[in-house]
Amino acid sequence: MPTHQLTTLNSHGQRFWLDSLSRDMLDNGQLESRIREQGLSGITSNPAIFAKAMADSASYEDRIAIAVETLERDGSVAAEGVYERLATDDVRDACDLLLPEYEASEGRDGFVSLEVSPHLAYDPVATLRQARELWDRVGRPNLFIKVPGTPQGLHAVEALLVEGINVNITLLFGLDAYEQTLQTYLRAMEQRLRDGKNLHTVASVASFFLSRIDTAVDRELRQRIDPQVDERIVAEAESLLGRTAVANAKLAYDRFVDISASERWQRLAQAGARPQRLVWASTGTKDPSLSETHYVESLILPRTISTMPEATADAFDHHGWIEIPAADSTSEAAAVLERLQRKLEIDFDAITHQLVAEGVQKFIDPYDQLMQRLAERIEHRQSSMQDAALATPLVGEASRLRAEVLRMTSRAGSGHATSSLSCADLVTALFFHEMRWDPSTAGARDQDRFLLSKGHAAPILWAALSEAGAIETDPLTLRQLDSDLEGHPTPRNPWIPVATGSLGQGLAAVNGMALADRLDGIKARLFCLLGDGECSEGSVWEAAQFAADQGLEQVVAIVDANGLEQSGPAPYGHDSSVLAERFRAFGWRTLEIDGHDFGAILPALKASREPGPTAIIARTVKGKGISFLEGAEGWHGKALDDDQLAQALAQLDEPNVRLLVEPRRVPIPEPTAATMAQVASEQAQEATSLPLKVEYPLGGQVATRAAFGAALEKLGDRFPDLVVLDGDVKNSTKTEHFAKTFPERFVEAQIAEQNMLGAALGLSASGKRACVATFAAFLTRAHDVIRMAAHSQHPHMLICGSHAGISIGEDGPSQMGLEDIAMFRALNGTTVLYPADAISAERLTEAGLEHDGIVYLRTTRGKTPVLYSSNERFEIGGSKTLAESTEDRLTLVAAGITVHTALEASARLREQGICTRMIDAYSIKPLDVATLQRAAEETGTLLVIEDHHRDGGLGDAVAAQVGRLGRVFQLGVSGEPRSGSPEALMDRHRISGQEIEREALAVAA
Amino acid sequence: MPTHQLTTLNSHGQRFWLDSLSRDMLDNGQLESRIREQGLSGITSNPAIFAKAMADSASYEDRIAIAVETLERDGSVAAEGVYERLATDDVRDACDLLLPEYEASEGRDGFVSLEVSPHLAYDPVATLRQARELWDRVGRPNLFIKVPGTPQGLHAVEALLVEGINVNITLLFGLDAYEQTLQTYLRAMEQRLRDGKNLHTVASVASFFLSRIDTAVDRELRQRIDPQVDERIVAEAESLLGRTAVANAKLAYDRFVDISASERWQRLAQAGARPQRLVWASTGTKDPSLSETHYVESLILPRTISTMPEATADAFDHHGWIEIPAADSTSEAAAVLERLQRKLEIDFDAITHQLVAEGVQKFIDPYDQLMQRLAERIEHRQSSMQDAALATPLVGEASRLRAEVLRMTSRAGSGHATSSLSCADLVTALFFHEMRWDPSTAGARDQDRFLLSKGHAAPILWAALSEAGAIETDPLTLRQLDSDLEGHPTPRNPWIPVATGSLGQGLAAVNGMALADRLDGIKARLFCLLGDGECSEGSVWEAAQFAADQGLEQVVAIVDANGLEQSGPAPYGHDSSVLAERFRAFGWRTLEIDGHDFGAILPALKASREPGPTAIIARTVKGKGISFLEGAEGWHGKALDDDQLAQALAQLDEPNVRLLVEPRRVPIPEPTAATMAQVASEQAQEATSLPLKVEYPLGGQVATRAAFGAALEKLGDRFPDLVVLDGDVKNSTKTEHFAKTFPERFVEAQIAEQNMLGAALGLSASGKRACVATFAAFLTRAHDVIRMAAHSQHPHMLICGSHAGISIGEDGPSQMGLEDIAMFRALNGTTVLYPADAISAERLTEAGLEHDGIVYLRTTRGKTPVLYSSNERFEIGGSKTLAESTEDRLTLVAAGITVHTALEASARLREQGICTRMIDAYSIKPLDVATLQRAAEETGTLLVIEDHHRDGGLGDAVAAQVGRLGRVFQLGVSGEPRSGSPEALMDRHRISGQEIEREALAVAA
Repeated sequence: MPTHQLTTLNSHGQRFWLDSLSRDMLDNGQLESRIREQGLSGITSNPAIFAKAMADSASYEDRIAIAVETLERDGSVAAEGVYERLATDDVRDACDLLLPEYEASEGRDGFVSLEVSPHLAYDPVATLRQARELWDRVGRPNLFIKVPGTPQGLHAVEALLVEGINVNITLLFGLDAYEQTLQTYLRAMEQRLRDGKNLHTVASVASFFLSRIDTAVDRELRQRIDPQVDERIVAEAESLLGRTAVANAKLAYDRFVDISASERWQRLAQAGARPQRLVWASTGTKDPSLSETHYVESLILPRTISTMPEATADAFDHHGWIEIPAADSTSEAAAVLERLQRKLEIDFDAITHQLVAEGVQKFIDPYDQLMQRLAERIEHRQSSMQDAALATPLVGEASRLRAEVLRMTSRAGSGHATSSLSCADLVTALFFHEMRWDPSTAGARDQDRFLLSKGHAAPILWAALSEAGAIETDPLTLRQLDSDLEGHPTPRNPWIPVATGSLGQGLAAVNGMALADRLDGIKARLFCLLGDGECSEGSVWEAAQFAADQGLEQVVAIVDANGLEQSGPAPYGHDSSVLAERFRAFGWRTLEIDGHDFGAILPALKASREPGPTAIIARTVKGKGISFLEGAEGWHGKALDDDQLAQALAQLDEPNVRLLVEPRRVPIPEPTAATMAQVASEQAQEATSLPLKVEYPLGGQVATRAAFGAALEKLGDRFPDLVVLDGDVKNSTKTEHFAKTFPERFVEAQIAEQNMLGAALGLSASGKRACVATFAAFLTRAHDVIRMAAHSQHPHMLICGSHAGISIGEDGPSQMGLEDIAMFRALNGTTVLYPADAISAERLTEAGLEHDGIVYLRTTRGKTPVLYSSNERFEIGGSKTLAESTEDRLTLVAAGITVHTALEASARLREQGICTRMIDAYSIKPLDVATLQRAAEETGTLLVIEDHHRDGGLGDAVAAQVGRLGRVFQLGVSGEPRSGSPEALMDRHRISGQEIEREALAVAA
Repeated sequence: MPTHQLTTLNSHGQRFWLDSLSRDMLDNGQLESRIREQGLSGITSNPAIFAKAMADSASYEDRIAIAVETLERDGSVAAEGVYERLATDDVRDACDLLLPEYEASEGRDGFVSLEVSPHLAYDPVATLRQARELWDRVGRPNLFIKVPGTPQGLHAVEALLVEGINVNITLLFGLDAYEQTLQTYLRAMEQRLRDGKNLHTVASVASFFLSRIDTAVDRELRQRIDPQVDERIVAEAESLLGRTAVANAKLAYDRFVDISASERWQRLAQAGARPQRLVWASTGTKDPSLSETHYVESLILPRTISTMPEATADAFDHHGWIEIPAADSTSEAAAVLERLQRKLEIDFDAITHQLVAEGVQKFIDPYDQLMQRLAERIEHRQSSMQDAALATPLVGEASRLRAEVLRMTSRAGSGHATSSLSCADLVTALFFHEMRWDPSTAGARDQDRFLLSKGHAAPILWAALSEAGAIETDPLTLRQLDSDLEGHPTPRNPWIPVATGSLGQGLAAVNGMALADRLDGIKARLFCLLGDGECSEGSVWEAAQFAADQGLEQVVAIVDANGLEQSGPAPYGHDSSVLAERFRAFGWRTLEIDGHDFGAILPALKASREPGPTAIIARTVKGKGISFLEGAEGWHGKALDDDQLAQALAQLDEPNVRLLVEPRRVPIPEPTAATMAQVASEQAQEATSLPLKVEYPLGGQVATRAAFGAALEKLGDRFPDLVVLDGDVKNSTKTEHFAKTFPERFVEAQIAEQNMLGAALGLSASGKRACVATFAAFLTRAHDVIRMAAHSQHPHMLICGSHAGISIGEDGPSQMGLEDIAMFRALNGTTVLYPADAISAERLTEAGLEHDGIVYLRTTRGKTPVLYSSNERFEIGGSKTLAESTEDRLTLVAAGITVHTALEASARLREQGICTRMIDAYSIKPLDVATLQRAAEETGTLLVIEDHHRDGGLGDAVAAQVGRLGRVFQLGVSGEPRSGSPEALMDRHRISGQEIEREALAVAA
């Protein structure tokens, strides 16, 4: 086995240095063993190398922490300060390892170099200042301050040397710069001599670079190796490849030898001055055609230093060659540079100057990156410390909220205590730390908002609002009649945007609130707290898709993954990764945390300040905080009795004082020109209050859905707060016109009706006028959402259901809206309108948009004749009597398409001498009871005809409200419809003119 | 620069071989340059090395293809055959490269070794047979057949050598085995001599292993290096680490030298026999404390061969040392083994035997893996070829279907042609290739089934069924009244399990069908074709979660990702990865394919035969096949006119003949004992037809939901086809009792009501009696699914909605079912039941389960008094008159909880001398019209009281059906309810006894 080849360099008068330093090398003994085994006698370092070490290695983690803490005590923490501290620590430790060598060599060797900030390369004063600082901080005699050999750098060098600070002049590429370096050293030593200072205590080296020169020169040479170029030039260029750096270095060495022999130097030497040795730097081979030890082997020269990267050192140590340059090598070297410049016209000086500039930059970039990284680490550390400091009071506050939840539910005798306890820490973190809100301004939009999708956890919300001083209501009135602290949140409480409690609906509402904020330029954050169980609801994923596709960056979904549902475990227990993966697959940024650790909650909430949508899956424990409730089944929705309550409260460490919420607001943008124009237009409209301009020729054929679409477009200007949503049927419902004219206020909600209606509700909760359109049949998909919208009390929503009834024809039953009227009638506070022609359709669209609350407008697929004149008025709650006489023996009551078949029947009956009163009951809810009652009284019998299931629709409404004054008969759709022509279907289901006539004759008899 | 160190081995009498061979080495010239530059003179290989090469490198791809094709022509393709072909090709090519060396050395060197299957190591006859085959197949004189040196192997070796086949005896670890090898060779040569055969044409080497020995021995040694062990033993063990293998090898070499000098050998040598050289194998260093060239450097001995891994060879070539063993090395080696066995009591023989066994296994494992991989590749290749052969007729059939779709829709004048064209290839592949089905048995369950979730593509389904001869209906009757080829599929057509056309519902139904199949042990596959647009529906993800969580392995969802919706692009265009990721996140196996390439469709369908659920996302083009329809917007749901149709048909290459579907069935298991028992029980029940045994004491307090739960559990035996689903509220709805008693027929459907109802529909479509329970309020979530269930005509479903009305109290409006009666009344063919007490609740549960069609049963949260005797009968369509007299001036009509408040009012009124008739209208639909009419006629006035929204419920039903004979007044919930006690709420909403009394007095006046 060979011995270490590196150690043989010494016998050739050359010392081996390493060109890198890291904490790992110091800690793992590598440096020590290189000194011992390989004869290592010096180390250099540079910002790029430190940057890499600090970025990659975990071994700096604690040191950064200590540095931050120390500096903090001193007042300020900057990345540069931390870097200096880490770097000087490493260098000092390395100096100590090399101190024996330094002492044994009487100060001739055993040095460690530390470079000034690369940003100072052209600033002599700053260099001087920093060099002194570093020198003092390391406080070791065997330290070199490394300074780039720029003209400015050399000014500083001279001053430093005169002061007695050792300097390693670096980034030397050209002979002229080297010459300046030599002269600088001579001048400094002469000055010291004049000043009567010691010379032997000051050291200096000149770092001369190698491989970078070849890289640059060879690039030039290769441009000349080209079939187009003169053969002799090509040959010349080929012969010079990979030779410049070594030749250049040999010439520098030659100059060093000359100077050393000079009288001027001899005088200094006699006074004790030490030679300024050359350090071969950049010795790692870049060119793959050269051996990896090429530069080392080519420059084994006495009184020089070879500084190597670790890989080069090991390669040389293992299989390096000692090759003593021939005596004539100097003239050969000169010839290389001569040929380069003369024959090939390569401007070598320009290259070396360029290399200096590049060299500086090569340090600046990683140095800056390191500072950036350090700054991040410092911030992270500081914020962790801050978070830790915050956590204690938050833990206490969460305890207070938990206790309040238990007291509230026990007093109420019911309520979801355990579901509240699992999210107590999350809610505390939101209301008492993360959210910018003002407890005195319920409903304001210039603050972050919160929606409790898992509505059954209402107690924790009431507790938080009460603790924050946002509500006056006594929490102990929970669930009592007339308290606004209901079992599940409703907007009776001013902090509740929309009612929740039917699971899986909150996120869609938050989507709508986010759309409204975007329209108004409000950058408030919208937090939605969901349960893990409710994520089984498809509506959650409709909303997730929508938020991501619409880019609703302010939306933050927090899933309280407590792993338990009402009747058993949630599908994925505490495995937060399942839901995280799903949110990710739906385009969300996701975080998974321990939902009871403020050290995890606060950073996650902070992270969610970045544009999202963001989902935080928080692993929690149901009943958290109370031993006998934690993770226990059978406690869902149950309250503790008095004994249990006492036991539970004893387990909670409730601080006496509550945390205060510092009121904060979200800036609201100044109104833009566009907004101003809208407001002006709105005011103008209101002032004139001009009704909608509608024009269709009487008897013309127009579909009511088309008229709805036309009106909507026309009303876009009148109502700047109008936002229209459609579920991929805009070309059928005819919202496409509005979409084209007001693209920013049109939302393509795709085929996802639950989210569409939920988003409309959210929009209305944020003060928008929301209009939603799809096929009447598909509104059933969102029945539960509409139900909750009705419980949300007077949202401003116009819902249009098109393609109503069997009259759509061939598409068949799946597309026929036959239960929509029943659905809307059975909800509190709704209005149901069903126009028969284009005029009434436009007017009712207008009336519907003006009306507060949920208005349902039913439109028809096929074209129907225009019945009314353009200036006819249509009031909600009204009707139109289309035929009336004192002879009337029967009243036909119809709406929508059956108005036309009833008119046809009425005409046929008239032909038979039977007079019928004919009423267009376009307002199904509220019904025009007065007119109908008069008809009942006057004609005795009413026949109601509708293109809707016979039960639950207009017929039922008339029978219920007018039946006491006359006989009410009904024709509506019964039996199972199918595909077929509209006419054939209406005939079969007995709502055609002919069938109405037949029934009228029967009932009138 | 050093020259190649490997070449210097030659001058020490040793040859350098490589221990691996691969196609890459042959193709990229590496082998050639090693021969030329490094003096490589031989190669060995083994199954493990071939396995790695063949598995990792693409360069075998074509060779495998050719081998498969060639072997196929010969009749059979087995993985072993392909391996042999590939391996012998590589070896032959390597032999040719080394042939010059072989010839130059007159047959002394230049060999390549090929090993027999490792499975034959202990089978001499099979070894012999395979060795001859390989020898013949390679057909080169410089081939070694490599045979393990087991006792059995050596039998074969002797025979082979006698036959003149060169043998490399491998896996030699111990000296005894080596001795046997030497003897075998001597015997063989002597036999040849006796037979008068040439000796110099036969070669043999003995491969002796190194590093594996140290690995095994050092493991033993390290066990002895332990503070607990005698110090001397520790020192001894430490001194022997890493020395055994070389010592052992030196002793083997010693034996070789001895034999070479023996008279016996000399006689053979004179006759031309070549020495059986030792090959040092396993020379790669495993122990990191040894140099990587340790084994090579330690055994540079004359007349030996060093076979090295590539890395070892290169390391030695670069920095290897030539170290000639000292003369006394033999005795030293013997001492090592001596100390090992005597002093440390290590049983070296046992170790070497163990190593032989392990060595064989080390080849078997990768060999088997390779065979497995090859088998897969062969199958893949064969099936691709088969698929390609199938594709042509399928392409033609798809063209026929496309043409038919265009003709059908043009004739109808409407219909979704372009949506059908995009999935034409998928449907063709399913119906004419993949599905096991019989066109003559519509509705049978012993076949694979198909559900068109994107129901608007009905034309392609009708076309496929018609082409396959499964339906008689003329396709050109599409969408005509009374054709069963409707615009969207309904079960009017016998091939349609459930109606589709409202998007996003198919998968849930398929889930139910899969549950039914699992219960009955049917392994049919269930294919569900979805559109990409419909995947925005949350119901799809409810179903996706359910299928994965329930492990419904037979479900295959195919998404026809044509990238276009009705009104614009689908959310993710043709990026199939988005939906694929989502399905994956929901626990599905996913495949993404080109949906128009049968070469992709058929393998994907085949892959989906593996247990799923599997989602295939097929990228398709809407309107595919017709230039002016492909990817064009504005064509959704539109038919071509005559000119366009002609143009389109001209673009389709329609073959004259249609493909035949070969009827196939899915095996159905024999009835199990359990099934038999069920059937028997069912028959027994039917025979006796005993009504449900119900017992509650009159006046006792029992919640109707509890009675429902009790009845359900009792009826579990009577109805073995009963399957119960619940949406995480089983402890509230009380299905928990059934769940406990019949866990296999209970499904926890989680909080996902759309899927729950859809799955129930699917179950009923597969002949099960499905019962679903959740809060009445949450059934609105599934309104559209229930609507489609009603259109699916008479599914056998009992739907129980619990917690109806405001009487639930404190939980508040979100949990109150107030619109459920209206919802169910407005659907065709439904039954609505609302029991007032436990007796009627049980009886109506029984009646509901017996009744065909959709039955809705409404239950109450709170306990109510038992009103009826245990043997009271309750018919659907009936009512109970609880009080009646000739004096009655008013009839109170109530159901459910209001029966009790009405009774209270009735009692108060009676106290005031006012007689009221009292009717429990438990059958809301159908209503007991006769009884009510009589009451109207006899009392003149009816007051209907219900805990439901005032509109759409019982009051409306009574008014509509009885109002012509008397005055009907209503009390129901109006205004917005809130949290509060049940009593307070009933009072406020005017359905309490006191309020009924007040209203009765008012209307009776």
